[in-house]
Amino acid sequence: MAEVEAIARLVNQLSKLPGVGRKTAQRLAYHIVGLPEAQVRELAVAIFEGKKKVRLCPVCGNYADGDLCSVCSDEERRRDIVCVVRDPRDVNAFERMRDYDGLYHVLHGVISPLDGVGPDDIRIRELLTRLSAGEIQEVVLATNPDVEGEATAAYLSRLIRPLGVRVTRIAHGVPVGGELEYTDEVTLSRAFQGRREL
Amino acid sequence: MAEVEAIARLVNQLSKLPGVGRKTAQRLAYHIVGLPEAQVRELAVAIFEGKKKVRLCPVCGNYADGDLCSVCSDEERRRDIVCVVRDPRDVNAFERMRDYDGLYHVLHGVISPLDGVGPDDIRIRELLTRLSAGEIQEVVLATNPDVEGEATAAYLSRLIRPLGVRVTRIAHGVPVGGELEYTDEVTLSRAFQGRREL
Repeated sequence: MAEVEAIARLVNQLSKLPGVGRKTAQRLAYHIVGLPEAQVRELAVAIFEGKKKVRLCPVCGNYADGDLCSVCSDEERRRDIVCVVRDPRDVNAFERMRDYDGLYHVLHGVISPLDGVGPDDIRIRELLTRLSAGEIQEVVLATNPDVEGEATAAYLSRLIRPLGVRVTRIAHGVPVGGELEYTDEVTLSRAFQGRREL
Repeated sequence: MAEVEAIARLVNQLSKLPGVGRKTAQRLAYHIVGLPEAQVRELAVAIFEGKKKVRLCPVCGNYADGDLCSVCSDEERRRDIVCVVRDPRDVNAFERMRDYDGLYHVLHGVISPLDGVGPDDIRIRELLTRLSAGEIQEVVLATNPDVEGEATAAYLSRLIRPLGVRVTRIAHGVPVGGELEYTDEVTLSRAFQGRREL
């Protein structure tokens, strides 16, 4: 039997998602087809709008609905410390920890020569522009503790220290080889507290 | 920080899918937001069309794009044997096995008094109508080997046998490739009862 074409197409699309194999995609597809139409519409709209309505904060590169992201537009936050992360999802991880009250800078990638990603391909220039305004006293490098993350941190450290800005790196409380995104709040909080001068 | 609303809504929608917890939903949502717009549109459309284009085969209840499903419209298949399953996804599982060449009947549920599902709530009447045409010689009951599946099979068996149609039940036993040691007692007991002369 040829599977119904619309279902096969849905399975195919779902199996492109990270961590979704063929079997899971098939289970999800059949589940979706069995849902009431209103619910399916809600899901499809949420996906489409999620992409369409979300823009990048022009200051820090985090996801935003308005002009600035919710962190940059929050007047309560300290403006003298910036935490540099790879992805918006890492901002989210730090915000869950609840005890950081500074700003962020999202690189949208890390330096990775093997993948053809150099310093000019991520938001390093934007970071230097922010630093040149003189308000920022400390840059916390919070890229993942993997090869590319460490290399990017080392690169940024060499670049920023001469500007007279304090450069720190989150402590290796985050398990080496682990992903920030999957780190529990306590570990993340420890890692942040244990940050050291680079 | 309040998470960006469109992302929160997407996480919420995704976490309603079976087997997708909060963390997975978040990972998927950030992945989707980071995709090129064309790809996101394809996914959203596949979901929506998956639901909209798929209809139920009026004969067997399987998913179909056209008037009849691909099994019922296949002239090569035997029309004297019908395999009764709970869901269209079970049809799919049987079709992957590739050596069944009869028809199906999809109940779209099983009898489950605790969930308020009685015999009239699933496609039993449609099955009896098919049987009354006299062409079908055997009904294979292939509902799941759980409480509701067994009860539904027992109910159907009592209903169909008096019509002079052969009623069979798929065998339950140790899965091929499975280990006796890790097989639960009920399955093992079934496997023993169902033993055959070699």
